[in-house]
Amino acid sequence: MHPFDTATLLEPLPDGSFRGHTSPAYANMVGPFGGITAACMLQAPTQHPARLGEPVALTVNFAAALADGEFIVVARPLRTNRSTQHWAIELSQGGEVAASATAVFAMRRETWSAPEAAPPANLPLPDTLTRAALVGRPAWARHYDMRFARGGMPDAFDEALQPDSVSQVWVRDEPRRPLDFIALASLCDSFFPRIFVRRRKVAPIGTVSLTTYFHADAAMLRAQADRHVLGAARALNFRNGYFDQAAEVWSDDWQLLASSHQIVYYRE
Amino acid sequence: MHPFDTATLLEPLPDGSFRGHTSPAYANMVGPFGGITAACMLQAPTQHPARLGEPVALTVNFAAALADGEFIVVARPLRTNRSTQHWAIELSQGGEVAASATAVFAMRRETWSAPEAAPPANLPLPDTLTRAALVGRPAWARHYDMRFARGGMPDAFDEALQPDSVSQVWVRDEPRRPLDFIALASLCDSFFPRIFVRRRKVAPIGTVSLTTYFHADAAMLRAQADRHVLGAARALNFRNGYFDQAAEVWSDDWQLLASSHQIVYYRE
Repeated sequence: MHPFDTATLLEPLPDGSFRGHTSPAYANMVGPFGGITAACMLQAPTQHPARLGEPVALTVNFAAALADGEFIVVARPLRTNRSTQHWAIELSQGGEVAASATAVFAMRRETWSAPEAAPPANLPLPDTLTRAALVGRPAWARHYDMRFARGGMPDAFDEALQPDSVSQVWVRDEPRRPLDFIALASLCDSFFPRIFVRRRKVAPIGTVSLTTYFHADAAMLRAQADRHVLGAARALNFRNGYFDQAAEVWSDDWQLLASSHQIVYYRE
Repeated sequence: MHPFDTATLLEPLPDGSFRGHTSPAYANMVGPFGGITAACMLQAPTQHPARLGEPVALTVNFAAALADGEFIVVARPLRTNRSTQHWAIELSQGGEVAASATAVFAMRRETWSAPEAAPPANLPLPDTLTRAALVGRPAWARHYDMRFARGGMPDAFDEALQPDSVSQVWVRDEPRRPLDFIALASLCDSFFPRIFVRRRKVAPIGTVSLTTYFHADAAMLRAQADRHVLGAARALNFRNGYFDQAAEVWSDDWQLLASSHQIVYYRE
């Protein structure tokens, strides 16, 4: 079994809730990697017998660091329309909420479609780049193959302020695994904190809220299979304890698979 | 009383929930303007006796068109930490959920801060622009003074496909009203649907999920007072029934007050 699937495995309980377990393979500095928690939050409605269609929007709020061990996820369908379905999801440990989420699922149909944003241009392909170093990185980073064209994790935290926090990175699960919505939800949180790129200074940080829009449907994700996708991430603003991150994930034939935003607490 | 305050007035009920009422002043084509619903969703935790700090993030999911009349809002504090507080909010009519939301509130403290995104450059000031026409617009649009520097609502829906959906617009409440978080939450949804700008073609649309990050604190909003703020909005992608919108709201001294994203259903 792929370590990602182990980490996002939810066992249905008789009362309709799900039991999951944190996984050492996706451990972060404190508690699990936020992306894996987001993936577990999306897994619950995806596995739920009442589920309609595919995910379109997911917002995860990280209320507390998870402790290593079991957690319970409850997914409630709030409203089911003809083509959309709204969910409320809560993850708890010891009876206390550690994360909450909302998700919108939908049955898509073919319509007029058009891209508007352009993917980063003139990027070197993943084969021509080397994999980012793993020394000193938390466990979860070992389960992504990341190849930075720009804005990698600084080699040295020398506190040299950078003009921007832009990263462009080819990324895939490691070991290879076919892309699906659950893996994409996690991958959208795999960009290193923008403040590390901008300030080249380590500081305590923690994502408080993460929103992902899925532009892709299942067929596009199947076509992408296990190859690297292109991530582009930047911040708009850092101010008094909170900065944001805007990220896009592109397929290797330059279609937008997801756009993702988060707001992150920082100290100092 | 300002019509915005009437429309977002919530009456506390003995069981801790709130009762609101849709307002004809902010009616949309079907049901109320989404921004006013978002504002009501933020009003509930803001008025709640357990509330800590100021809003940092708000996600509102629009599950159904509201009917004209009363609605009930329930705001539950899910978790209160030292400096952050997580909320789940539900708006219902006749016992059915019409909208759900999550919000993160926080006590901010002074830290290293830096902008990264730049506001649109070389923009004409609001005094040099004329107010957008109101003929044929829904009631809510009359309660904003909008002055488009670029990408206004098309004069004619001639189906001439545009190269992009970018809008740049000076906007304030009409009549004038000092800016606060509730008004800013609403204003973040005041940009016309990107698909109208891009396609110059009317089609049925509806926002399904809206996320706003508040970069400003209360003091910055007080300083902005009742003057126009600058909104910049665009879409990244239109695909099989869903497009996104990325928006920024800038103060008139060029500080980022909010960044806001939404995903919108469309037909055809």
